Amino acid sequence: MAESEHEMIARLLAPLSRWLPGAFALTDDAAALRPPEGCEFVVTMDTLIDGVHFRFDGTPPSAAMAARKALAVNVSDLAAKGAEPFAYLLSLALPAGHGDWLDGFVSGLAAAQDDFGLKLAGGDTVRTNGAFAITITAFGIVPNGRMIRRSSARPGDILIVSGTIGDAFAGLALDRGDSQTSDWSGQLDDSGRKSLLARNRTPTPRVQLIPALRQFATASLDVSDGLAIDASRLAAASGVGIEIDASSVPLSAACDTLRTAGKLRLEQLMTGGDDYEVLATLAPESEAGFRQAAAQAGVRVTRIGRTVMGAGLAVRDSADKLMELDRLGWDHLS
Amino acid sequence: MAESEHEMIARLLAPLSRWLPGAFALTDDAAALRPPEGCEFVVTMDTLIDGVHFRFDGTPPSAAMAARKALAVNVSDLAAKGAEPFAYLLSLALPAGHGDWLDGFVSGLAAAQDDFGLKLAGGDTVRTNGAFAITITAFGIVPNGRMIRRSSARPGDILIVSGTIGDAFAGLALDRGDSQTSDWSGQLDDSGRKSLLARNRTPTPRVQLIPALRQFATASLDVSDGLAIDASRLAAASGVGIEIDASSVPLSAACDTLRTAGKLRLEQLMTGGDDYEVLATLAPESEAGFRQAAAQAGVRVTRIGRTVMGAGLAVRDSADKLMELDRLGWDHLS
Repeated sequence: MAESEHEMIARLLAPLSRWLPGAFALTDDAAALRPPEGCEFVVTMDTLIDGVHFRFDGTPPSAAMAARKALAVNVSDLAAKGAEPFAYLLSLALPAGHGDWLDGFVSGLAAAQDDFGLKLAGGDTVRTNGAFAITITAFGIVPNGRMIRRSSARPGDILIVSGTIGDAFAGLALDRGDSQTSDWSGQLDDSGRKSLLARNRTPTPRVQLIPALRQFATASLDVSDGLAIDASRLAAASGVGIEIDASSVPLSAACDTLRTAGKLRLEQLMTGGDDYEVLATLAPESEAGFRQAAAQAGVRVTRIGRTVMGAGLAVRDSADKLMELDRLGWDHLS
Repeated sequence: MAESEHEMIARLLAPLSRWLPGAFALTDDAAALRPPEGCEFVVTMDTLIDGVHFRFDGTPPSAAMAARKALAVNVSDLAAKGAEPFAYLLSLALPAGHGDWLDGFVSGLAAAQDDFGLKLAGGDTVRTNGAFAITITAFGIVPNGRMIRRSSARPGDILIVSGTIGDAFAGLALDRGDSQTSDWSGQLDDSGRKSLLARNRTPTPRVQLIPALRQFATASLDVSDGLAIDASRLAAASGVGIEIDASSVPLSAACDTLRTAGKLRLEQLMTGGDDYEVLATLAPESEAGFRQAAAQAGVRVTRIGRTVMGAGLAVRDSADKLMELDRLGWDHLS
């Protein structure tokens, strides 16, 4: 009997479940997963749609990038919650006529799961009459009751963000290649351009920061819809106000160049989304310890503000003047 | 600030997470889930696409049916694996212009999760440029190491199926209302017609059978792609052959009427799929105990064959003649 599509996909994916006994090499209808003694699972689920969350051009490299991004956005949630990546389930909705690029997809997934430290436990593959879509459910591990919430910041905490903000926004603009970005070429060298594109196409979840967050963060979430809106969500959930000093928001060299040249405004970078950085609050006395742990983990962290009694988000510019943001980030469905 | 789509959907869905503390009322980025002491999670994931796996006409009742079916097909996997339903994650991909029917969707989901015994733990909602799609990851609970595999049948076991086979296939044909089914009207009364339609639109997972399966089944899976193909998969995974006596395959009164009238062939019913019944193997000495437990649970079970040394599936008709099946069931992507 010829190999069915189901069998082909299972054969391609099965190696990704190696070393995870409860995945049963993807040969059963379900997986059996158990957290270590004294620990529980942190679970998150994200769907990415071709043409909305990634751009698939039908080639293996493009499929590999889609696979990496789908896994990365889920692992980014785990990292911000202080959960060690453990396993994931994958559902693929495939339009008719796929095929050549499936190897590329699986290679991208294999590399990403090795980088992020988790294994495939199972999932589903279906035919769709719509767009190629990838849904992942990711499982992380925390000691019982130790998931870092977004609701547990206290007034007087300091506000920390990892990495740099706005690169993915600039990268998306470059990827779209619209008229706005055509006059950026004088500003960006090839490596700056490439780094911005990569930050949008293949985000890097901050898994190295997990031990530091576990030890020191009072609250945390990942910046996916925009620094401003995610900060305001953390504030609302915690029942505090948040003040951000816009001039301390960390920018990459490429973004800083574009901002200085007047090509991009800081507000755009703070509300653009898709950063997949960690936004966390700490007691002030934890700052030194957190910085040391982050440095050991090789992750840049920057203090950008503080929590206060009250509610809402206030962003101040370098002259200490309140900035009016037209919008905070992505709050509609996307 | 006006309520965003995200906020509206979270507000509608949040009550479905009540009594599940680790869901954090859907206000955080992830859920924290822990199996009881000595138990582990059985996890499964299925995606259903409008126009492929369900037919959505834009009305609240149609949305409620889609919600129930999406949850049912996942819970059916849990039940066949002997896992008590516990929680689920839900990802919705919504085309633009949804809205009126979301209440219907949530009501359908609420009723289904109460019927099946699990709670909403989290998920995602995204905009799609394609079809309405529902992905669910379901979590069930088994004692450590006790998930019922499809690979553990032994030669000499008996083969049991729950409920009746083929109703969903007939119901789908009725739902499509093609020329083939227009001459069924003389055969089916209104209640027969309705019961077949319901079996396709809103399948009922066999959660009541879980204790009996746990106690007695040597292997098990749910019949989703067709009795014949799922039996052949169980045989292949277990390294045994399976013999099915076609005349003992349980049919509903409506299907039996259609078969007797020559409107449907038994082969169609055995290969049609979407039954969501349980196919299990038992040691012969367990049959009495299993039947008693199933009767107490109120689930009809029927002995339809046996496992043998060897490989593959053999289906025999009432004259003990080998039946040639053109196809075994759904083995391509669907």
